[in-house]
Amino acid sequence: QWMMLDWKPRRSDMLVDPFGIGRIVQDGLVFRQNFSIRSYEIGADRSASIETVMNHLQETALNHVKTAGLLGDGFGSTPEMFKKNLIWVVTRMQVVVDKYPTWGDVVEVDTWVSQSGKNGMRRDWLVRDSNTGETLTRASSVWVMMNKLTRRLSKIPEEVRGEIEPYFVNSDPVLAEDSRKLTKLDDKTADYVRSGLTPRWSDLDVNQHVNNVKYIGWILESAPVGIMERQKLKSMTLEYRRECGRDSVLQSLTAVSGCDIGNLATAGDVECQHLLRLQDGAEVVRGRTEWSSKTPTTTWGTAP
Amino acid sequence: QWMMLDWKPRRSDMLVDPFGIGRIVQDGLVFRQNFSIRSYEIGADRSASIETVMNHLQETALNHVKTAGLLGDGFGSTPEMFKKNLIWVVTRMQVVVDKYPTWGDVVEVDTWVSQSGKNGMRRDWLVRDSNTGETLTRASSVWVMMNKLTRRLSKIPEEVRGEIEPYFVNSDPVLAEDSRKLTKLDDKTADYVRSGLTPRWSDLDVNQHVNNVKYIGWILESAPVGIMERQKLKSMTLEYRRECGRDSVLQSLTAVSGCDIGNLATAGDVECQHLLRLQDGAEVVRGRTEWSSKTPTTTWGTAP
Repeated sequence: QWMMLDWKPRRSDMLVDPFGIGRIVQDGLVFRQNFSIRSYEIGADRSASIETVMNHLQETALNHVKTAGLLGDGFGSTPEMFKKNLIWVVTRMQVVVDKYPTWGDVVEVDTWVSQSGKNGMRRDWLVRDSNTGETLTRASSVWVMMNKLTRRLSKIPEEVRGEIEPYFVNSDPVLAEDSRKLTKLDDKTADYVRSGLTPRWSDLDVNQHVNNVKYIGWILESAPVGIMERQKLKSMTLEYRRECGRDSVLQSLTAVSGCDIGNLATAGDVECQHLLRLQDGAEVVRGRTEWSSKTPTTTWGTAP
Repeated sequence: QWMMLDWKPRRSDMLVDPFGIGRIVQDGLVFRQNFSIRSYEIGADRSASIETVMNHLQETALNHVKTAGLLGDGFGSTPEMFKKNLIWVVTRMQVVVDKYPTWGDVVEVDTWVSQSGKNGMRRDWLVRDSNTGETLTRASSVWVMMNKLTRRLSKIPEEVRGEIEPYFVNSDPVLAEDSRKLTKLDDKTADYVRSGLTPRWSDLDVNQHVNNVKYIGWILESAPVGIMERQKLKSMTLEYRRECGRDSVLQSLTAVSGCDIGNLATAGDVECQHLLRLQDGAEVVRGRTEWSSKTPTTTWGTAP
């Protein structure tokens, strides 16, 4: 999972972005990094995939922590967290995509952290087209601490608070919190169920956990292909409830609302509920996605 | 598949690499681009995955064609190829990896093309650590032309030859060709068979074909996990024999030689034969991989 990495950086100069792309801006509280969209980061509809967007968010979060010098002996963990065997885990992620970039576009990702309740940290992101300044994506996430030995959640110890509070920005979230409760789907309420999903070797991170960006691919595995083809994902809210490792076998469930399932082609906006669960029923991720019609392209459907 | 893309670039300034990273060097015949390895490009063993390496090769090949101004009205195709409905398809790929980079490393990828027989083009790559100059990866590939309407291979027409020959480098391949024949595996000769592999939506390229880097993940799906854990892939030869689309269902077959399968932990170098085929038996990719023991790391296996 994000931030659930902890190894020693190989060399001190890893702290410096070699292209000078990533840097601290705005009184040292916002980290900014540019990404040029690569050919293999775009999908069948020629625009960057949601996974690409999320990967860029992950990369800036990690580089922010690196650049702030808050590495501790670990990676993502501060020195005091490392002493106490604490790691960050994400519990909630909310993303709104106004526009997806395409190959060759350069996006500018800003990220910053702030207080979230008594024992959480919020991390926000703002992604813009570096050429036009147009907002492409806004995202907001909530992180809590977990003891990596007991795998139980922990309060933020005072010593850790002292380390991270100086980095907290005092601002409203970049996205108003979507406070609608996420439904718990089951076999009866789901319209689509895809079973037997297993991690590929390349889905695992250095802790042999499934990186949480990969969950998104699995969630979308149970979305009907008509949605993927004709609609674009415009927002997503995820609640992460459980870790998942290399031997996990998952089921992906989706329920579609707001349109006639048999008639996605002419549907307007569509909302889906999602659940990713282990075969024994334990919930891994609950989610909600919102979709809107793709702008038709003249070449669409002409591939042989 | 690589180069089997053909759409109109959105704007002319896409031809310019926005970071000044990609450029033509050495008398205009070699294209060079740097890549900073990102956190999501490394795998469970903390080094870049083979898919990451291959993605970087793909990206430089496409940027080379873009930068050379050989775009035609398409993408990868020259103007004359576009007129004649011709596209490039890869038939053979040979890769030797001496060392995998890790997060934060910067790699420098050089690529160039040359004649291959009467009707083919060879594309070579040399990947170095941009800091030390150390060679990390060498790769060589062979491309031929296919009519995108009939899906049949084609000779290189004179008009096309006139366009591309000025870019041909007169040099030996960066890798001596591995001329050993690739075995055709079947149910009897394979040690491991993994069935029912299907493309995820995100595996598809703009033509709704499976991008050929994805094949590598599928090939490795049937390799025993002990190899993935304890050995690193040091070379790979692939023969691409057939396209594969979004409705294809594949089987991945692997045979291990050079060691006792039950005892991979203490095995030295290992060689594998691979076959990716459709459920009806039609061959998609034949391959051979060579592996050597990973250098043990002190932290390996300490993840909770």
